[in-house]
Amino acid sequence: MGCSYGENIRITVFGQSHSTAVGVTIDGIPAGERIDCDRLCAFLFRRSPGKGGLSSERKESDTPEFISGLVNGMTCGAPLTAIIQNEDARPGDYEELKNIPRPGHADLTAWIKYGEARDWRGGGYFSGRMTAPLCVAGGVCLQLLERKGIRIEARASKIAGAADPDDMERAIRAAKEEGDSVGGIVECVASGVPAGLGDPMFNGLENRISQIVFAIPAVKGIEFGEGFTAAGLRGSENNDEYLPGYNGIIFASNHCGGILGGISTGEPIVFRTAFKPTPSIGKKQRSVDLTTMEPVMLSVPGRHDACIVPRAVPVVEAAAAIAIYDSLLAIKLGK
Amino acid sequence: MGCSYGENIRITVFGQSHSTAVGVTIDGIPAGERIDCDRLCAFLFRRSPGKGGLSSERKESDTPEFISGLVNGMTCGAPLTAIIQNEDARPGDYEELKNIPRPGHADLTAWIKYGEARDWRGGGYFSGRMTAPLCVAGGVCLQLLERKGIRIEARASKIAGAADPDDMERAIRAAKEEGDSVGGIVECVASGVPAGLGDPMFNGLENRISQIVFAIPAVKGIEFGEGFTAAGLRGSENNDEYLPGYNGIIFASNHCGGILGGISTGEPIVFRTAFKPTPSIGKKQRSVDLTTMEPVMLSVPGRHDACIVPRAVPVVEAAAAIAIYDSLLAIKLGK
Amino acid sequence: MGCSYGENIRITVFGQSHSTAVGVTIDGIPAGERIDCDRLCAFLFRRSPGKGGLSSERKESDTPEFISGLVNGMTCGAPLTAIIQNEDARPGDYEELKNIPRPGHADLTAWIKYGEARDWRGGGYFSGRMTAPLCVAGGVCLQLLERKGIRIEARASKIAGAADPDDMERAIRAAKEEGDSVGGIVECVASGVPAGLGDPMFNGLENRISQIVFAIPAVKGIEFGEGFTAAGLRGSENNDEYLPGYNGIIFASNHCGGILGGISTGEPIVFRTAFKPTPSIGKKQRSVDLTTMEPVMLSVPGRHDACIVPRAVPVVEAAAAIAIYDSLLAIKLGK
Amino acid sequence: MGCSYGENIRITVFGQSHSTAVGVTIDGIPAGERIDCDRLCAFLFRRSPGKGGLSSERKESDTPEFISGLVNGMTCGAPLTAIIQNEDARPGDYEELKNIPRPGHADLTAWIKYGEARDWRGGGYFSGRMTAPLCVAGGVCLQLLERKGIRIEARASKIAGAADPDDMERAIRAAKEEGDSVGGIVECVASGVPAGLGDPMFNGLENRISQIVFAIPAVKGIEFGEGFTAAGLRGSENNDEYLPGYNGIIFASNHCGGILGGISTGEPIVFRTAFKPTPSIGKKQRSVDLTTMEPVMLSVPGRHDACIVPRAVPVVEAAAAIAIYDSLLAIKLGK
Repeated sequence: MGCSYGENIRITVFGQSHSTAVGVTIDGIPAGERIDCDRLCAFLFRRSPGKGGLSSERKESDTPEFISGLVNGMTCGAPLTAIIQNEDARPGDYEELKNIPRPGHADLTAWIKYGEARDWRGGGYFSGRMTAPLCVAGGVCLQLLERKGIRIEARASKIAGAADPDDMERAIRAAKEEGDSVGGIVECVASGVPAGLGDPMFNGLENRISQIVFAIPAVKGIEFGEGFTAAGLRGSENNDEYLPGYNGIIFASNHCGGILGGISTGEPIVFRTAFKPTPSIGKKQRSVDLTTMEPVMLSVPGRHDACIVPRAVPVVEAAAAIAIYDSLLAIKLGK
Repeated sequence: MGCSYGENIRITVFGQSHSTAVGVTIDGIPAGERIDCDRLCAFLFRRSPGKGGLSSERKESDTPEFISGLVNGMTCGAPLTAIIQNEDARPGDYEELKNIPRPGHADLTAWIKYGEARDWRGGGYFSGRMTAPLCVAGGVCLQLLERKGIRIEARASKIAGAADPDDMERAIRAAKEEGDSVGGIVECVASGVPAGLGDPMFNGLENRISQIVFAIPAVKGIEFGEGFTAAGLRGSENNDEYLPGYNGIIFASNHCGGILGGISTGEPIVFRTAFKPTPSIGKKQRSVDLTTMEPVMLSVPGRHDACIVPRAVPVVEAAAAIAIYDSLLAIKLGK
Repeated sequence: MGCSYGENIRITVFGQSHSTAVGVTIDGIPAGERIDCDRLCAFLFRRSPGKGGLSSERKESDTPEFISGLVNGMTCGAPLTAIIQNEDARPGDYEELKNIPRPGHADLTAWIKYGEARDWRGGGYFSGRMTAPLCVAGGVCLQLLERKGIRIEARASKIAGAADPDDMERAIRAAKEEGDSVGGIVECVASGVPAGLGDPMFNGLENRISQIVFAIPAVKGIEFGEGFTAAGLRGSENNDEYLPGYNGIIFASNHCGGILGGISTGEPIVFRTAFKPTPSIGKKQRSVDLTTMEPVMLSVPGRHDACIVPRAVPVVEAAAAIAIYDSLLAIKLGK
Repeated sequence: MGCSYGENIRITVFGQSHSTAVGVTIDGIPAGERIDCDRLCAFLFRRSPGKGGLSSERKESDTPEFISGLVNGMTCGAPLTAIIQNEDARPGDYEELKNIPRPGHADLTAWIKYGEARDWRGGGYFSGRMTAPLCVAGGVCLQLLERKGIRIEARASKIAGAADPDDMERAIRAAKEEGDSVGGIVECVASGVPAGLGDPMFNGLENRISQIVFAIPAVKGIEFGEGFTAAGLRGSENNDEYLPGYNGIIFASNHCGGILGGISTGEPIVFRTAFKPTPSIGKKQRSVDLTTMEPVMLSVPGRHDACIVPRAVPVVEAAAAIAIYDSLLAIKLGK
């Protein structure tokens, strides 16, 4: 069981890359919240494929249909369920891959775990396609957070080691031409988060955010504030000193990324996630035919991104929004 | 609420730095498992303070007492609870810190969240002391995993940027002399983990391990396999190719750290966690008196480690053991 | 949050009486289980309305569409989601009830809890309509249990105080003619349940079954084995003695209803649930207009059952099947 | 796993009848709540054994020691853990019962589930002794609820079929003299509960209360409001009509027991639980020796109550308090 997340809201993600539809149920949103479906679609559009020569050519309109929980555009207290039809599913594209696991994908582990019954078409439940319903839930949370003055913005801070946008695009293009792919780093900043969010020990903000961020395919690392850099600093360099301010205490710096002891400090929450290069590449790789156990050389066919990072940016925002909104509802449990 | 972790076992950690005792309850361990209490104590000794000039001078024998769940050294099916007395608690050491939050600690966020009622003595529930009961649970899981052929070993791979043990010790000593501290990186390897562990999406091994690892104070980052390095690689470099082997498929490399799609591949699970430098330092830092809101210069008194990393090594093993054992029990839910 | 249930499988029920669709997600069913959709439809037909003069005239074909989790009729390991379109929704029927809470319904408590944003159409999420997706989940579990030799059968043991089927029908008809309604008792027996299912304390079979059974609208009581009758017996009358048998111990009687200490004994699990009379009646009742706070006399219009018990029988089976299957998966967590 | 309960607070009960101690952890109580330990002890005294000729002669002072979570008598935000030493454990009393399961107890099911490793001494984790830590958690919740104007009071409404206190005592005494036991019914009323508590479907008040009430050994049934009686009523008799009142709507009656759709109406919450007669009786019963599988006649030795109902009264209050406080914290999750 892994399809649900959350303590104070609970999201449940269903569907597969080539099932009839993908979707999400969100339980626990207070009644009376207006959901702006146009803004939600605009948010989803940021992750949708088919927007340019550099991303996957799969075309999906990615319009969520709320089949429950919403009455006249407003939450009614019942769980909110939205589905997105899989319009442009072409499982045939994957027919030849049925028995040849793609290196770097979950094809092999899914086969080990579920056997012949697995949905091998396009990665099944492990597909990047599943980030669409995640973005529906995240997009809803972003709207709710915005009403509390909280904004979440992510950006590709590095692609293929390059920090400059021109260099990034050049690196993606070069990889694509060679039938290869590149990875990158997404930096996410949540501002306006009130101090005091997050619970200690296992449900701190770092625990909650990292649990959901690793639900995004291709994420292999996460760090908060100075993160791995802090491991090389002195305490006197990394500690954030306190100063008196007009409305309470001011942080002289934000090396901790807005979180101390799992709890928000009131400063911006800053984290970075590492995305590995897209595993689907045209370049030939060694694999094994699962039916014959013979070696084969595989060049992955079909539609895929030479770099997933640009499309992953809104997905990271969505994940952060869900985790932070979940923690926000918890903090209302007052005395 | 943040004191519990786990889907298939459930651990609950209680106590504070200077409460009567700290402890842990573990629910879900099958009946009939023998717990070797001597080995458990030996494991706990690795994280215990007071072993040398470089670590905290707090003396605790750290002997867990199983007050329930164990009959003649064997689990009986009831939840297992162990407590460790806080023998050498000296809350007086912290009296002067009551109203002066230590930079880099949770003192300030605990005050924001819980107000005057917080346990300010030695960090309360946010103290590194709470890793003792975490190690009790982890030490139990390590024994259970070993019986399945699974071994977990961590080591300090870097301290203060140095990978060489001599350099590490020199860096810690230098920091200590200057009233300062250093951080580092702990690398953890779990070998013998069968393929197929972990659930998709929110309960993959990366999600589960990262959720618990961030419960260790001072952890600010985690990466699996190539992690952040993978973000700079090409797909053709980072993908792990497959080869036919005598007993199934062999991985030509293990860049993915033994996890694909959240599910174990059968190769060793490899992850690294970044520890920030100990926030408690003798060097003067700016803080604010919470009662007067006046600025103060603080030199943290009391017992603390110039580098927490050596003592954190078994804690990382404990956290990994709990997460992996939790996933192991899940996989038995067969058809 | 109340839309999810289960520890080892997790079902999530969404939709409202007059939303686009109702549905359910089931996480945790092992991969490779065949779902017989025809049998599932036949099961759903037992609870569906519109079958005769005695039940509600709402017509719904109640055909579940599996939009995910099923590949060629077999579970693939991903969460299973089925939706049922609300074909015959006539929210207009309820327009006049928007501001007049029906006595005995959740109309008033939903208004108190969710305010104007509540879905007042036909009871919203509190409608008996929501037992359709519950029956989808239960029907799936029934099939899975049957493969383990477990059968669950419920029946109306009393309606309007009568135990004889003819008397029952007469009582329902009489009530209907008077614009009134009657309640009854459903007895459920699960046979073939292996000994050892259920966890102690809060997750025993009685705890798990009762938690889900009270999700069925109109249920106001549950008892296991002798239940309330046992309260009037002597220990020597109510205890079930043990006898040696060919294949282990035999129970001389089954007053405990197949459960001791929350754990199955191997004897049939027997429980009874009390259903209150349908609150929707034609007879005039006193209510209050929520907009004016003036008293009104209300005769509930629209389609409703004079006795819900016959249609509730499969719903009780469904609820029991989910709880028992959930406990069955837990027991596989072996040493 | 069954030792934990709750969505918004989380209680975890540990210990066995004859372990070193029994105890409970309560996570999620807001910081700054004062716990009156004297009142808590007085509450525990109501369930404690050894008070008279009619109850068990086991002597336990039942004084809870808070080993964490409490600073100067006030909750500090960390989980609250209290332990009670098992002072008067005499496991020797049970030696002869090791291999002879007592009819009506969980001895046999524990043996089936856990095998030789089970704690057979005095029922282990299935013992009525475990209601002591449950009462610690419940006693704390009762104090917190009282501050919100909520009072919970239970009473033995029937013992051995008798509603009159004199008849009750006579029946208990008669049974005791014959080496037998009697059961009874506990009625519980929670007044001052605000309207709007409880979540729909699986987390309504009836679901939450019944899940925890079945954690009390010997409970075999529960009903809310009219309960099983409602099954024999007409809708026009059972529905509670609404009247306009000075401060909102008034219920003309409370047949529903203060709960509609799982949500509190503002009227008193009323439920009754059926307790079977104490299974431990002196009268000879047939059992089987687990080592030889030979039939034996068993007269249960040791200390036990001829009727558990009087001591169960505060336990029912405790269970109700936990469930209602849990729901109360949920309702604060406002917009």
